[in-house]
Amino acid sequence: MTLVGKQFPNLDVNAMNDMGDTFKLNILEEAKSKGKKILLFWYPKDFTFVCPTELHAFQAALGEFEKRNTLVVGASCDSAEVHFAWLNTAKDNGGIEGVTYPLLADTNRNLASRLGILDLTNERYDEETGDITVDGDNVTYRATYLIDEEGTVFHEGVNHMPLGRNVSEFLRLVDAYTHVQEKGEVCPANWEEGKDA
Amino acid sequence: MTLVGKQFPNLDVNAMNDMGDTFKLNILEEAKSKGKKILLFWYPKDFTFVCPTELHAFQAALGEFEKRNTLVVGASCDSAEVHFAWLNTAKDNGGIEGVTYPLLADTNRNLASRLGILDLTNERYDEETGDITVDGDNVTYRATYLIDEEGTVFHEGVNHMPLGRNVSEFLRLVDAYTHVQEKGEVCPANWEEGKDA
Amino acid sequence: MTLVGKQFPNLDVNAMNDMGDTFKLNILEEAKSKGKKILLFWYPKDFTFVCPTELHAFQAALGEFEKRNTLVVGASCDSAEVHFAWLNTAKDNGGIEGVTYPLLADTNRNLASRLGILDLTNERYDEETGDITVDGDNVTYRATYLIDEEGTVFHEGVNHMPLGRNVSEFLRLVDAYTHVQEKGEVCPANWEEGKDA
Amino acid sequence: MTLVGKQFPNLDVNAMNDMGDTFKLNILEEAKSKGKKILLFWYPKDFTFVCPTELHAFQAALGEFEKRNTLVVGASCDSAEVHFAWLNTAKDNGGIEGVTYPLLADTNRNLASRLGILDLTNERYDEETGDITVDGDNVTYRATYLIDEEGTVFHEGVNHMPLGRNVSEFLRLVDAYTHVQEKGEVCPANWEEGKDA
Amino acid sequence: MTLVGKQFPNLDVNAMNDMGDTFKLNILEEAKSKGKKILLFWYPKDFTFVCPTELHAFQAALGEFEKRNTLVVGASCDSAEVHFAWLNTAKDNGGIEGVTYPLLADTNRNLASRLGILDLTNERYDEETGDITVDGDNVTYRATYLIDEEGTVFHEGVNHMPLGRNVSEFLRLVDAYTHVQEKGEVCPANWEEGKDA
Amino acid sequence: MTLVGKQFPNLDVNAMNDMGDTFKLNILEEAKSKGKKILLFWYPKDFTFVCPTELHAFQAALGEFEKRNTLVVGASCDSAEVHFAWLNTAKDNGGIEGVTYPLLADTNRNLASRLGILDLTNERYDEETGDITVDGDNVTYRATYLIDEEGTVFHEGVNHMPLGRNVSEFLRLVDAYTHVQEKGEVCPANWEEGKDA
Amino acid sequence: MTLVGKQFPNLDVNAMNDMGDTFKLNILEEAKSKGKKILLFWYPKDFTFVCPTELHAFQAALGEFEKRNTLVVGASCDSAEVHFAWLNTAKDNGGIEGVTYPLLADTNRNLASRLGILDLTNERYDEETGDITVDGDNVTYRATYLIDEEGTVFHEGVNHMPLGRNVSEFLRLVDAYTHVQEKGEVCPANWEEGKDA
Amino acid sequence: MTLVGKQFPNLDVNAMNDMGDTFKLNILEEAKSKGKKILLFWYPKDFTFVCPTELHAFQAALGEFEKRNTLVVGASCDSAEVHFAWLNTAKDNGGIEGVTYPLLADTNRNLASRLGILDLTNERYDEETGDITVDGDNVTYRATYLIDEEGTVFHEGVNHMPLGRNVSEFLRLVDAYTHVQEKGEVCPANWEEGKDA
Amino acid sequence: MTLVGKQFPNLDVNAMNDMGDTFKLNILEEAKSKGKKILLFWYPKDFTFVCPTELHAFQAALGEFEKRNTLVVGASCDSAEVHFAWLNTAKDNGGIEGVTYPLLADTNRNLASRLGILDLTNERYDEETGDITVDGDNVTYRATYLIDEEGTVFHEGVNHMPLGRNVSEFLRLVDAYTHVQEKGEVCPANWEEGKDA
Amino acid sequence: MTLVGKQFPNLDVNAMNDMGDTFKLNILEEAKSKGKKILLFWYPKDFTFVCPTELHAFQAALGEFEKRNTLVVGASCDSAEVHFAWLNTAKDNGGIEGVTYPLLADTNRNLASRLGILDLTNERYDEETGDITVDGDNVTYRATYLIDEEGTVFHEGVNHMPLGRNVSEFLRLVDAYTHVQEKGEVCPANWEEGKDA
Repeated sequence: MTLVGKQFPNLDVNAMNDMGDTFKLNILEEAKSKGKKILLFWYPKDFTFVCPTELHAFQAALGEFEKRNTLVVGASCDSAEVHFAWLNTAKDNGGIEGVTYPLLADTNRNLASRLGILDLTNERYDEETGDITVDGDNVTYRATYLIDEEGTVFHEGVNHMPLGRNVSEFLRLVDAYTHVQEKGEVCPANWEEGKDA
Repeated sequence: MTLVGKQFPNLDVNAMNDMGDTFKLNILEEAKSKGKKILLFWYPKDFTFVCPTELHAFQAALGEFEKRNTLVVGASCDSAEVHFAWLNTAKDNGGIEGVTYPLLADTNRNLASRLGILDLTNERYDEETGDITVDGDNVTYRATYLIDEEGTVFHEGVNHMPLGRNVSEFLRLVDAYTHVQEKGEVCPANWEEGKDA
Repeated sequence: MTLVGKQFPNLDVNAMNDMGDTFKLNILEEAKSKGKKILLFWYPKDFTFVCPTELHAFQAALGEFEKRNTLVVGASCDSAEVHFAWLNTAKDNGGIEGVTYPLLADTNRNLASRLGILDLTNERYDEETGDITVDGDNVTYRATYLIDEEGTVFHEGVNHMPLGRNVSEFLRLVDAYTHVQEKGEVCPANWEEGKDA
Repeated sequence: MTLVGKQFPNLDVNAMNDMGDTFKLNILEEAKSKGKKILLFWYPKDFTFVCPTELHAFQAALGEFEKRNTLVVGASCDSAEVHFAWLNTAKDNGGIEGVTYPLLADTNRNLASRLGILDLTNERYDEETGDITVDGDNVTYRATYLIDEEGTVFHEGVNHMPLGRNVSEFLRLVDAYTHVQEKGEVCPANWEEGKDA
Repeated sequence: MTLVGKQFPNLDVNAMNDMGDTFKLNILEEAKSKGKKILLFWYPKDFTFVCPTELHAFQAALGEFEKRNTLVVGASCDSAEVHFAWLNTAKDNGGIEGVTYPLLADTNRNLASRLGILDLTNERYDEETGDITVDGDNVTYRATYLIDEEGTVFHEGVNHMPLGRNVSEFLRLVDAYTHVQEKGEVCPANWEEGKDA
Repeated sequence: MTLVGKQFPNLDVNAMNDMGDTFKLNILEEAKSKGKKILLFWYPKDFTFVCPTELHAFQAALGEFEKRNTLVVGASCDSAEVHFAWLNTAKDNGGIEGVTYPLLADTNRNLASRLGILDLTNERYDEETGDITVDGDNVTYRATYLIDEEGTVFHEGVNHMPLGRNVSEFLRLVDAYTHVQEKGEVCPANWEEGKDA
Repeated sequence: MTLVGKQFPNLDVNAMNDMGDTFKLNILEEAKSKGKKILLFWYPKDFTFVCPTELHAFQAALGEFEKRNTLVVGASCDSAEVHFAWLNTAKDNGGIEGVTYPLLADTNRNLASRLGILDLTNERYDEETGDITVDGDNVTYRATYLIDEEGTVFHEGVNHMPLGRNVSEFLRLVDAYTHVQEKGEVCPANWEEGKDA
Repeated sequence: MTLVGKQFPNLDVNAMNDMGDTFKLNILEEAKSKGKKILLFWYPKDFTFVCPTELHAFQAALGEFEKRNTLVVGASCDSAEVHFAWLNTAKDNGGIEGVTYPLLADTNRNLASRLGILDLTNERYDEETGDITVDGDNVTYRATYLIDEEGTVFHEGVNHMPLGRNVSEFLRLVDAYTHVQEKGEVCPANWEEGKDA
Repeated sequence: MTLVGKQFPNLDVNAMNDMGDTFKLNILEEAKSKGKKILLFWYPKDFTFVCPTELHAFQAALGEFEKRNTLVVGASCDSAEVHFAWLNTAKDNGGIEGVTYPLLADTNRNLASRLGILDLTNERYDEETGDITVDGDNVTYRATYLIDEEGTVFHEGVNHMPLGRNVSEFLRLVDAYTHVQEKGEVCPANWEEGKDA
Repeated sequence: MTLVGKQFPNLDVNAMNDMGDTFKLNILEEAKSKGKKILLFWYPKDFTFVCPTELHAFQAALGEFEKRNTLVVGASCDSAEVHFAWLNTAKDNGGIEGVTYPLLADTNRNLASRLGILDLTNERYDEETGDITVDGDNVTYRATYLIDEEGTVFHEGVNHMPLGRNVSEFLRLVDAYTHVQEKGEVCPANWEEGKDA
């Protein structure tokens, strides 16, 4: 069932920043305690080729998100060590050097499981051994969540593996939701800040 | 769990068109038998004020979707009779006169339940009577699905009640997915047809 | 099992009046707190052709019901917005302009489910997805309930979809029940106020 | 859940006629094999004072029902012997002498249980003895069923114990349903044969 | 399992007397509070031909039972109204006019079910509807219970439908049991008061 | 539930006769294969003082039962060896010398359990050991069964421990039932062969 | 599982002595409260031919057991009345006249069931009637228990039906166990009091 | 429940002989295929002091058992290797050198568990780990079984840990059982071959 | 329960080699189809500092393993892409450039779960959401498996996170097992090829 | 699941030392109360030929373990009596004379079951008898556990039956773990005390 209109899950997840620090990040608490909106975007794997363009695109728009009181957080199921190695790899070598927002390292899949965005299928139980085997790589689709200052999800979207995201659309959604928060008005189709609704 | 990467549910749903005909529409079969992509968008209720702007915006872009081999289908949980009354109400009176794409009338919520997009919460069972009572109006959020010619979902997105959608973003996603289908290339962030990937 | 002789279910339901106000209406509490009888009648759908005649007929008899200390309430599973649109549609256009009693908008079917008057059949459970699919439009039959000042149901009747109701029969039942309340006498067949029992 | 729109239960029940014959009567089969409509009315008990007036009223209208291809059947949970004693008691002594339609003697409550019209409440299970005890007299409310030639219920109504029925309303319902069968038209409120719909 | 040696069930049952009064009778409490023995005899149905002879025979012996501190109570599953009609029917017409002991009207079968004396067989559960259907008329066999001043059953006997009872045998059993109570002696076969044991 | 109107249980039970032979006796098969009625009477224990009088009384009436095509069988839960010892004990010493009908030795209580005539109460399960403990001596009350040539029980009666039976009453019941079998007439109260019904 | 090394079951059982007194005997409490060892021996049935020899043999050795602070108790599932009759039957007639130790009358098999020594096999449940039927006579094998002053079982042995016991072996076991109690020494094979261990 | 009168369990168990051979021994099959009686005796542990005396005593009587067509088998839960080490230890050093009958090495307790002769108590389940923990050493009491040529157990006996067995008593039991087999006579108490029964 | 003495699990797992090829590797089938022994070693995470030394150490000993007909396979739960990035990182930068044996990329933990070597603890189920949350990083301990040519595990060992392995000990174990295979001799403690056993 | 990183099970187990004393040893408490590391090694059976070499090898290295604050404990499922017999058997005769560390005698398998190191397979439940039968000898593999001063397991390893262990590898593991404890440094592959990491 959709998370829209509900609280984001309350979970601590390992994260890595560009300083090489490993720390715990709880998206729900971060939004509520700092009074900020959060854009959380998931990508399948570190060290692949389409993903870096999304990470760089969010980095390039970081100023615009900050103006809108919005934090950006990236996330995959790779380890903090792998995130750090990728952060230290030059953009020309397929790395993400220069990214300054934090990256969740959800190796135990606690959060991705609860969001239901892992490419796991065909779960089967081995009666003999009591073990569970699955198909799929156990990595996430390109899922994006917009969370407001109360921790409520106001947008969720999932793209199939090969489809990159459009950063400006998320800026539009943040603007529209802020408009609703401030004006109490519903935002019609194709609404954009400064244009007539 | 996300529908992305999976087949759209195989269900017949009542639908209404602008001629006043009531008919059954099965999104999965429609896509596969006609070899078309489908954009299916849900809105909460007929005869409200933000919804018509979305319905008119999709109508205005219908030619662009047709060029991309994509059908547009609207959907709410109102009855076919109510859809028809709204289709016969002038735009100036808050109606959707002029809309030519079909509208699902999912009064029994068979499809909306399976998609998990109803604003139902706090389901509780009455031990004494055996009945189930819920909170919420039992109408849908603004959910959108992009389905390909094989019936596979390649995008799903849900906006909170007051947030209208951006039609051009869906055109971009259709273009990007078509690019992947044709070129076998992954589409990076902010990719748009004709721009450098 | 019949509700006759039992308390009407204790449930808040959305309602719309001719002023365009949306409010909560609890039939049981309304009867008990106001010390009035209530006639609650259900019809299948707004914006259909047989239903308006019933709604107008109850409106025409409203004075007679008021004389008998009886409130009239209409009900369907359409939304309050749809009720309001219909209330604003002229009688000549198939609308119910002029109706002044409230209309329940039981979109979440909380009350209709408990009364067992929805045309739902063939409920089936999908083992794979955990979803329930049904046949039928999930709208109500033409059910009528007469509730006394204590909230006890003293008549229930259900007509098949195409059969309109006879308003005067309900006036007769209210009279007969009032006679029983006042005189402690049983009312024989074909009893009518003023006629010999 | 309402029986309207569904087949009447397929059950053999003991019956008595005015000749003193005991026989089995299956309402569903009777309607289908004879190609007749059936009006089945239940009353609480033989040898009470309000009940005879209803039985005499249906007897008086028997010709009208026959003109409409409709059989009349009475029913209570008393035994066939008791029915016969009552049939042999003069009207002046509170009897029903002169009634010629059959009376169901549902002593084992097979049919009344399935219809859910017994005044049983507060069922409780005795853990120690394995027995079930109930409140209420285990007799029926004044329930009425109209069944068509296919065995489908098109009206059901239940009156509280002290409320007698209006025979002419049932003639109106039979006429209206016949009109729907013949003309394929819906019958609006207050419709009566020969009057404008 | 036999009730002999155990307390009679503690249950209120509707009863009718020859004055036309309806009242509640609890056999166990009646015996204990009045310090009397009770003979309770069940017969299948009112208004049949073998039963009246038994009822008249117990009436004829009422004085003998009173001398032995023993109350007589009759019982069937007919209603109090039917009992009263039968009590008002002359003996020559198959009635029981002249009977002065009370008659249980166990219409809800609370007591007869617990005693296990109903002619119900072949109980079957309808999975589809959740209803239970039975064979048999749901009336009692000719069962007789002798209860002492402590509420303990000291004899139970059941005769098949067509076999009338022998009143003098019950007088003998009451005498023998009283002898045991008073003398502490066991009563051998064929023992009768005044004869050598 | 009463056995009257049902087949007697189909069970082989150990039995002893006055010749000292141990054999298996199946009451149901005995009645059906020999085309005889059977009177089966149970007594609590061998070698007690009240029981012999009953056994001698049935012996004395054996000729009368034979005239009525009726076998007599006695029964207790003592072993065949104990029965034989008692059969060899003179009447003056409290024995039953002279008894010629067979005696069931239901040591494993297979039949007595099924008839529900054992004085067992307060069954309790020991969670620790998995054993069941009971109160009572696990012997039978004075129960009597009359079975017809088809194996159907037409009378059952149970007397408390100290109450001896009246042999002539059983002869009357056999006569009455035979009368019903031959004449198809119901036997009223106090009916006796040769007397007016 | 063996009872050796565990407490004997704590149960009251009916018993008979040679004075004809019926009383309750609890083996565990008897041993502990009197500070005595107990030899409890079971035999299948009274009034058979092999059993008396065992009962007489234990009687003959009673003095030896008393010297060893050991009580002897016999047991079967026959009733106290049967025990008394057998106690009053001369030895020459197969009786046990002269036996002075008590005999358990475990008619309800409470103790024999718990010890697991009944010849019951092939227990089967009748789904239709809810009754349990067994094979076997429901009497005990020749089981023997030696219990010490604390109630602990230090020997149990079971012989098949036709095998009589050897009284002197039980005297040897009592001696050996007493030796262990006094000397704290283990008793080797073939150990006998006064012989070299 | 006792094994007497039933077949010995059908199980292969590891065994060791004095030649140091390890082999499988199935007591039931051994008895039946060789047409011999078997005496199976269990002792707690190898390399303890009381046990060797029993093993030597059975060895000394081996000729007597052979004369009676009876095999002797010893058994403990020690391994075959440990049995062999003990067999190679001189009697003076607490060994069993000279023993020639086979010894079961029931290390997996398959047979001892089924016989219920292990000193295991207080079994408890660890919810957290799913493991079972017990008290006691998991070795056997001094249990003895006599099995006939059909595999039927005709004697079982269990001695508490410190009580050695009496070999001659087992010879007596074999003789008595053989007497029953040959003569069909029951053996009374204290019966011995050659003495008067 | 230990895998030693059992077949290694039969599972396909993603793997990466130094050429950048992604392929499926099934350890059990690899051993059996190629007739080779396999050493499979797990390490916690790519891009950490202790792990590379183990990977380089196994690379350095690869010739010795090849001489012993033994394949070496590394494994972690990182993705194939991450393995490839690490394989392309110079040893001086903490990379594993130069490693030529394949690396399992068990991102879905199918194999690691079955081996029970993940550092997952405190698994808890969220009743509300139906999700499972765990503590620990969901990466593996330093586990090592030696599998023979039949797929049977002959050694398993697990070191806590910070403890590196000793490559020569695994060579010793392979030698010893080969010695057992060839000579059928057991290898005593501290056995090494060429030294006296 | 591996025990590494978790507390060793908290269980008392019987043990034997070279003085012939039987005592309880709890590995977890021993480590924590004495502040020592423990090496616990399991071998299959006493009195076999490969096992003694391991026991002697650990004895020879005892001084080295003591220098490292580490206790050595051996373990098998043989009884304490058997351990003592083996301790008293000269090395030349396959004994372990001279061993001074304690030996666990886990006859009830409480600890070995929890560790999952018994060679039990094919557990099957006998429906008829309620018993469990297994394959395998129910003895342990050559499993080794290294436990630190907090009771945490830091290494576990299991060798197949015929593979002896290498004592020096365990000394290396103790050194490496101690290094981690003291220096907080991870120990790379092939690390040895005094060599460069």
